[in-house]
Amino acid sequence: MAKRNGKTSAGTAKLRDAAIERLLSLQIETPSWGFSDSGTRFGKFTQPGAAVTIEDKLDDAGQVQEFTRATPTVAVHVLWDFPDGFDPAVIQYARSRGVQIGAINPNLFQDQQYKWGSITNRDAAIRKQSLDHILDSIEIGRQTKSQYLSLWFADGANYPGQADIRQRKAWATKALQKAHEAMPKRMTMLVEYKPFEPAFYFTDFGDWGMAYVFAKNIGKQAKVLVDTGHHFPAQNIEQIVAWLIDENMLGGFHFNDRRYADDDLTSGSIDPYQLFRIFNEIVAAERERGKALDIAYMVDQSHNLKPKIQAMIQTVVTVQDLFAKACLVDRDALAASQAAEDVVRSETILKDAFNADVSGLLGEVRKQLGAPADPLEAFRRSGYEQRIAKERAQRPAEATATGLG
Amino acid sequence: MAKRNGKTSAGTAKLRDAAIERLLSLQIETPSWGFSDSGTRFGKFTQPGAAVTIEDKLDDAGQVQEFTRATPTVAVHVLWDFPDGFDPAVIQYARSRGVQIGAINPNLFQDQQYKWGSITNRDAAIRKQSLDHILDSIEIGRQTKSQYLSLWFADGANYPGQADIRQRKAWATKALQKAHEAMPKRMTMLVEYKPFEPAFYFTDFGDWGMAYVFAKNIGKQAKVLVDTGHHFPAQNIEQIVAWLIDENMLGGFHFNDRRYADDDLTSGSIDPYQLFRIFNEIVAAERERGKALDIAYMVDQSHNLKPKIQAMIQTVVTVQDLFAKACLVDRDALAASQAAEDVVRSETILKDAFNADVSGLLGEVRKQLGAPADPLEAFRRSGYEQRIAKERAQRPAEATATGLG
Amino acid sequence: MAKRNGKTSAGTAKLRDAAIERLLSLQIETPSWGFSDSGTRFGKFTQPGAAVTIEDKLDDAGQVQEFTRATPTVAVHVLWDFPDGFDPAVIQYARSRGVQIGAINPNLFQDQQYKWGSITNRDAAIRKQSLDHILDSIEIGRQTKSQYLSLWFADGANYPGQADIRQRKAWATKALQKAHEAMPKRMTMLVEYKPFEPAFYFTDFGDWGMAYVFAKNIGKQAKVLVDTGHHFPAQNIEQIVAWLIDENMLGGFHFNDRRYADDDLTSGSIDPYQLFRIFNEIVAAERERGKALDIAYMVDQSHNLKPKIQAMIQTVVTVQDLFAKACLVDRDALAASQAAEDVVRSETILKDAFNADVSGLLGEVRKQLGAPADPLEAFRRSGYEQRIAKERAQRPAEATATGLG
Amino acid sequence: MAKRNGKTSAGTAKLRDAAIERLLSLQIETPSWGFSDSGTRFGKFTQPGAAVTIEDKLDDAGQVQEFTRATPTVAVHVLWDFPDGFDPAVIQYARSRGVQIGAINPNLFQDQQYKWGSITNRDAAIRKQSLDHILDSIEIGRQTKSQYLSLWFADGANYPGQADIRQRKAWATKALQKAHEAMPKRMTMLVEYKPFEPAFYFTDFGDWGMAYVFAKNIGKQAKVLVDTGHHFPAQNIEQIVAWLIDENMLGGFHFNDRRYADDDLTSGSIDPYQLFRIFNEIVAAERERGKALDIAYMVDQSHNLKPKIQAMIQTVVTVQDLFAKACLVDRDALAASQAAEDVVRSETILKDAFNADVSGLLGEVRKQLGAPADPLEAFRRSGYEQRIAKERAQRPAEATATGLG
Repeated sequence: MAKRNGKTSAGTAKLRDAAIERLLSLQIETPSWGFSDSGTRFGKFTQPGAAVTIEDKLDDAGQVQEFTRATPTVAVHVLWDFPDGFDPAVIQYARSRGVQIGAINPNLFQDQQYKWGSITNRDAAIRKQSLDHILDSIEIGRQTKSQYLSLWFADGANYPGQADIRQRKAWATKALQKAHEAMPKRMTMLVEYKPFEPAFYFTDFGDWGMAYVFAKNIGKQAKVLVDTGHHFPAQNIEQIVAWLIDENMLGGFHFNDRRYADDDLTSGSIDPYQLFRIFNEIVAAERERGKALDIAYMVDQSHNLKPKIQAMIQTVVTVQDLFAKACLVDRDALAASQAAEDVVRSETILKDAFNADVSGLLGEVRKQLGAPADPLEAFRRSGYEQRIAKERAQRPAEATATGLG
Repeated sequence: MAKRNGKTSAGTAKLRDAAIERLLSLQIETPSWGFSDSGTRFGKFTQPGAAVTIEDKLDDAGQVQEFTRATPTVAVHVLWDFPDGFDPAVIQYARSRGVQIGAINPNLFQDQQYKWGSITNRDAAIRKQSLDHILDSIEIGRQTKSQYLSLWFADGANYPGQADIRQRKAWATKALQKAHEAMPKRMTMLVEYKPFEPAFYFTDFGDWGMAYVFAKNIGKQAKVLVDTGHHFPAQNIEQIVAWLIDENMLGGFHFNDRRYADDDLTSGSIDPYQLFRIFNEIVAAERERGKALDIAYMVDQSHNLKPKIQAMIQTVVTVQDLFAKACLVDRDALAASQAAEDVVRSETILKDAFNADVSGLLGEVRKQLGAPADPLEAFRRSGYEQRIAKERAQRPAEATATGLG
Repeated sequence: MAKRNGKTSAGTAKLRDAAIERLLSLQIETPSWGFSDSGTRFGKFTQPGAAVTIEDKLDDAGQVQEFTRATPTVAVHVLWDFPDGFDPAVIQYARSRGVQIGAINPNLFQDQQYKWGSITNRDAAIRKQSLDHILDSIEIGRQTKSQYLSLWFADGANYPGQADIRQRKAWATKALQKAHEAMPKRMTMLVEYKPFEPAFYFTDFGDWGMAYVFAKNIGKQAKVLVDTGHHFPAQNIEQIVAWLIDENMLGGFHFNDRRYADDDLTSGSIDPYQLFRIFNEIVAAERERGKALDIAYMVDQSHNLKPKIQAMIQTVVTVQDLFAKACLVDRDALAASQAAEDVVRSETILKDAFNADVSGLLGEVRKQLGAPADPLEAFRRSGYEQRIAKERAQRPAEATATGLG
Repeated sequence: MAKRNGKTSAGTAKLRDAAIERLLSLQIETPSWGFSDSGTRFGKFTQPGAAVTIEDKLDDAGQVQEFTRATPTVAVHVLWDFPDGFDPAVIQYARSRGVQIGAINPNLFQDQQYKWGSITNRDAAIRKQSLDHILDSIEIGRQTKSQYLSLWFADGANYPGQADIRQRKAWATKALQKAHEAMPKRMTMLVEYKPFEPAFYFTDFGDWGMAYVFAKNIGKQAKVLVDTGHHFPAQNIEQIVAWLIDENMLGGFHFNDRRYADDDLTSGSIDPYQLFRIFNEIVAAERERGKALDIAYMVDQSHNLKPKIQAMIQTVVTVQDLFAKACLVDRDALAASQAAEDVVRSETILKDAFNADVSGLLGEVRKQLGAPADPLEAFRRSGYEQRIAKERAQRPAEATATGLG
C-alpha cells in the first residue's frame, strides 16, 4: 500500500498508530438474545447448550468479553430476560461475569394483544399498555444505568385498506413523546426502522426518513438506529449513515448481514466491503471532528446454524477487522485524489485499506486489551461449549426465547 | 369494451360464453395448512376456531367448497396432517365433507435432522430418511388417488463456504430419480423453487431454471411448480409461465401475493394485474391448443391476520375473477393489433379485459355450480366461524401446525 | 359494490357526485420533452412527426389538452426548449394552442461541465454556473407566471471513494438556499429524488428522506417531488406519500410506471393498483381536510415505443381513471371496517372501488369539460399524427432533445 | 492463514505454486468498445483521447496487453468496428499491436429496423436481415479465427400485450439454429441473458434459465454467457455459475460490477467478495476435474467516468487479484470443515483466502509474463494517455460508437 500511494512509512505508521488507538476504545455491545436458540418461521434448529436463562446469557456474553475484551455491555430484551419482572440482582450477576447491562429493548410484538399494533394500535388501552411497557423499560434502564433505550416496532399492516397510515403515525409520535419525557437526561432513545417483515404491506417505521422524522418530532434525545439488514438490497447504506452523521441524528447500529431480506447473518459474511464503507464514513467524520462519534455499536443477529458464542466472537472480530481497515484509509491522499477527480486512484486508496493486512495491528490492540491474539480459535479450544452443552442439558427443560429483528 | 375494440356484440357474447365454460371447470385446490394458525418468526397470532386436527381442516375446506363449488380437493401436508401415520379413514371423512384429498406434500424441513439439508444432506442416513418420507408420501398418494406429489425443499446454506452446491445438486437429483421411479404413472411430481428463505445464502432449488433442470434430469413425470411469491420483486413471472408452457414443463401453481419477500398474502391483494397477466398467458395457450392445459391450481398462503376461511374464499373468488377477465381478452383483436405493432391498442385490449365487470359472468358460473352469488358474504353470514370458535375452544389444547412456504 | 358494503344508493350517488366534482378540477401537466424522440443508452428509435422545436411541443401539448381538457399546462425544460435563451413570444404561442407554461425545469446534467456534478461540483465556478442556470430558470418562471421550479439533479458518484457525500450535501444545500431566496413568494421549489441512474454508486438526492431534509434546510417554499419510478421495486410509495402529506411536504408528482428501474413507461401500465393506492392516500387526506391538496400532478415519461401524443393521452386518461376510482372508496364504510379490524372487508372496500366501472362517471366529467368521451380514440381518428408526420418530415433536420429522468 | 487452518507451510506453498501456474494461463479478453466514449441515456461525458477508429481501439487494447500480458485478445463489435465491412487488414494491425481478434459481437439493436426486435421481429424480412448479420459475423470470425460468437439481444417488449412471448421464442430459436449450422466446428456460440433494459416489460433472453433452454434447443456448440451485471440485486450468481459448470453449459463471462441495475462499473468495484465467490466455484471445479475449464473471460464495462485504459487495466488486475485469492482457498481444509458441518471454520477458510495478500504471488506471475509489477501505476506513468489525447484531438471529428450491454 505504502508504495502505491507514495506514502512515506512515517505516514503509514501514523495511520497504524491512530488505528490502534481508535480500536482500543471501540466497544461493541452483544445482545442477550443472540445466545439463545432462534430460527425462522419454518422451524428452529436447537443447539446444545444454547442459553435459556438471563444467567446463561450473561455467562455467554461474559465469554465473548473475556476472549475479545471489546464487548463490555450486553443489550437486554425486557420480556425475554425479565419475564417475571426486573431483578436488580442481575446487575450484580452481570458484573461478576465481567459485563454490564447495556441497551434496554422493550418487546412490543410478541403478545397476542399486539396483533393490530402496539403504540399504533387503535385500541387506546393497548397503546397505554405499550407505553407502560416502555416506561417500565426506561425504569429498568435507570437502575442499570443504561445509556440507551432501543426501540423496534413490528407494527404495520399486511393489506391495503387495513390501517390508516397517518393516524398510526400520530399515535406513535404521541406515545414516544411521553416516553421521551420520562427518560433520564443521559439516556438516548434509539428509533429503529425496517421496510418489511413481520408486517408485509407497510411497517409504521419503514425507512430512515420515517425514523428521522419520528425522532425529530419526539425530542432531542431521540436518534436513529441503523440495522444494517433493514434495507432494500441495493440501497446505499453508507450514504444514509453519512447523512445521519451530518444531521447529528445517528444514534447507533444493529450489525448483521444478509443476502436478500433481514437474514440476520453474521456481520460481514456476505458483503464485507459494504460494512467497510460504512465504517469509512464514520472514521472520516471522526477525523474531521477530531473525536469519536457517540454511536452505539450493537450486534443483532439470529445466526441459527452457527454456534452462538462462536458466531458472536466472529462478528466482533469482523467488525474490528473492518473498522481497523477503515482507519487505515489514507485520508490526505484521498482528499488530494478527490480534488484531482482521479476516480481510479480514489477507489484504489479505499481498496488498499480494505485489502490491508490488519492482523498485526489487531494483535497489538488485543495485546493491550488483554485478549488472545485469535479470539475465535482461543474460544474454540477453551472447552466452554462442551461444558455448557453438558451442564445445561442436565437441567429441566424451560421454554426458550426466540430471536428478534 | 365492445365499442372501443370495434367488437360486435356477437363477438363479445362468444367470449363471455367461453369464459363461463372455462370457469365452470376451473378448480382450485385449498391447502389443509391454510386453515391452521400460522405466523412469522416473530410470533404467531392465534385465531379463535383455527383448525388443529385433520378433521378440522377438512371441515373448513368443505366450507370453502360449499360456498364456492370450485375447490373440490385439499392438499395435505403429511407430517402435520398425519402425525401418527396415514389413516385411510381420512379419505372417507373428506368425502363426507364434499372434498377429496389432493396433492401430497412431504415435510422435509421441520425436524432437527434436516438442519443441514434433507435429500441434499451429506449424511447418507438422513438422505435415506428423506427419500423414505417421500416414498411414504407417494404411497399415501396412491391410496388417496392423488394426482400430484408436491415437493418443496427448504434445503440450502446460510454462509459462503458452508456447502458444496454441485454435490448437493447431485444428491438431490439421485433421490428424486428414485422417487420418480416409485410414482404411479398417473402421478406428477411437482418441483417447486424459491430463491430465499429459510436458507439465506443459497437455496438448492433456487429458481425456475434450477427446477427445470432438476425436472429434466429426474424423469418425464416431473414438472415445475410456480409459487407466485417465490421470485425477486421485479421478475416477470408471466414470462416464466409462458416459457414453461412452451416447454411443456408447467406443472402447477401455488397462489399467494406479496410486497417484498415470500409474504404469503392472499392472492391478488397487492398486484392483481400481475396475476391477470399470468392467467392471460395460460388462456392464450389454451386457445391456441384448443384445450385446457393440465395445470394444478393450488393455494399456498399464510394469511396470519385474516380469518382463515374468509381469506381462502377471498382468494378463490379473486382467482376466478382474474381468470375470467383473462378469458375476456379479445385475442383476435389483440393478434391484429400486435401485427400492426400498435402498442397502445394492444395494451388497451388487455386493460379492457382487466377492467371488465365480471360479476354477472361469475354469477352465472356460480349459479350453474350451485354456489351463492357472493361466496364471501354468504359465508360471513353463515355463522360457521362463530360456531367453530365456540366448539373448538372447548376442546383440550393441542399443538398446532405452523405455516410453510 | 353497493350491495356488498350495505351502501344505500344515495351514498353511492353522493360518492359519484363528489368524484365528478373532484375530477373536474384535476389538472395534469404534460412535459414538453414527452413529445420529442427519446431512447435508452442503446439507441433511440425515432418516430415520424416527433416534436423538435418548442412550437412543435406546444402544438402537441395543445392536442392533449384539446382532447382531454385536463392538461392546461406544459412543463418546460430550459435547455431543450430555449436553447438560445427564453423568448417571451413562447408565452403567446402557448396561449394560442390553448395551454400555458407550467413548471420550469433547469437542466444541470447534460453539458460536459457537469461530469463531476452541478451544484455539488467541487469546482466553485461550476457550482456558480449551476446556480446561475437555476436563477435564470426562476426568472423565466417569473415571466411565465409558473408556480413551480422543478429540480432534478443527476449528481452523484459512480465509485466508492470518488466523492465526499457530506461535503456535496453542504454545497447543494447552500446553492438551493440562494435559489430559494430568489424565488417569487408564490413559487414552490420541488426537490426530486432518485436512488439510481445516471450516477451509479450514490446519487446526491437519493431518496425521499434526503429530499425532505434538503427541503427543510432550504426554506419554506421547498417541497418534495415524488417521481413514481424513482424507488426500489418493493418500496411502498403510498406510505411515503401519506407521510409527506402528513408533514405538509408533498409538492408534486412525476407520473410514470416501470417494471424494474426508472423505465419511464406510461402511468399505470405495469401496476395500476399501486397508483390507485397512491391516489387513495391523497383523496383520504382531502376528505379529512375538506379541500383539495396543493399538489402538482405532472407527467414525466419516456415512452420510446408508443406514439408520443397517444401515450400522453393514455396516461392522462389512466390517471383520471384511477383517481376517479380512489374517489369512489367508501370512506365511512372503510372507517367502520378498520375500527372493527375487519381486514377482509377493508380490503374489499378498496378493491370494489378499484374494480368500479368509472367510464360513465368520466364520460360525465368529459362532457362538462368539453372533451370527447374517449379522448384516445378521438385523437387517433383525428388525423393529426398523419399530418405532422408529413409536415415535420419536410423540414430540414435539427438535433432533437433527449429524454430525462 | 497458515496457522489458523493448521496448514503446514508446505501445503501453503503448494497452493501458492498452483495459483501462480493457474494465473499464468488466465487470459482476459478486452472489448474494443471499452476504449470509446460511452454514457447513459442522460448524456455522454467525453474523454480526451477516447478511441474512435478500430485502429485506436487496437492501439489501446495493445497497451492493456503490454502492461498486463494477460489480455491477448480483443472482442470486436461488428457494426462499430467495421462500419464499412470487415477489412482483413485489421487482423494484421491487431498483430502489430500484440493482440488478436477475439469474440465476434454482432449488433442487432442499434438500427431503426430493430425497433420491434431483431431475430424475434414479426417481420420475416427483418428476421432475415438479423440472421444475415449474424452469418456475416460468423464469417468474420472464420477469417479472424475467433473461437467465440458472442450474442446479446436487446429484444423484448415494453408493455403488456405488446408481443407474443412464445412466438418470439420460436423465431429466435429457429434463427439461432441456422446460425449454429453455419458455425465452424471450433466456434462456440455464447448466449447472453439480461432481465431488464433496454426492453422494460420483458426481454426475450431474460435469465439464465432462458439462455440455457435456448442453448439446448439451438445445438451443441451453444453455451450460456454470464454477464455479472445482468441479475437482480440479491441473486446468487455463483450458484448459477456452479449449475452451469455442472451442466457443462458455462461458455463465458462478461465482467463488470454494479450497485443496482446494469451499471457497467469496473469489476469488483462494488462487491469484490461476490466476484471472489464466483471464481471460487470455478477453481473448485477445476481442481476436481484436474484441468482448467474452457471458459471465455471477457470484460464488458461502460465506465463513463474513469479513463478508459486505466479502467481496463484496473479491471484486469482486480480479476487476477480475486482469481488468485480463489486459488488460495485451502480445499482440503474446506472439505474437512464441510464434512464436520463446521460453518464457522468453512467461512473462515474462504475469508482467509479472500483476505490473503496476493501481491507477492501476482508479482511473480507478472515477472514470468514480462509485465510490470504494478501495471496500473506503470501505465499511468507511461505518458500514453497524454500522447493520444493530443494526437487524437488533432484529427477531424468522427462519430464515436456508444456502449453496449
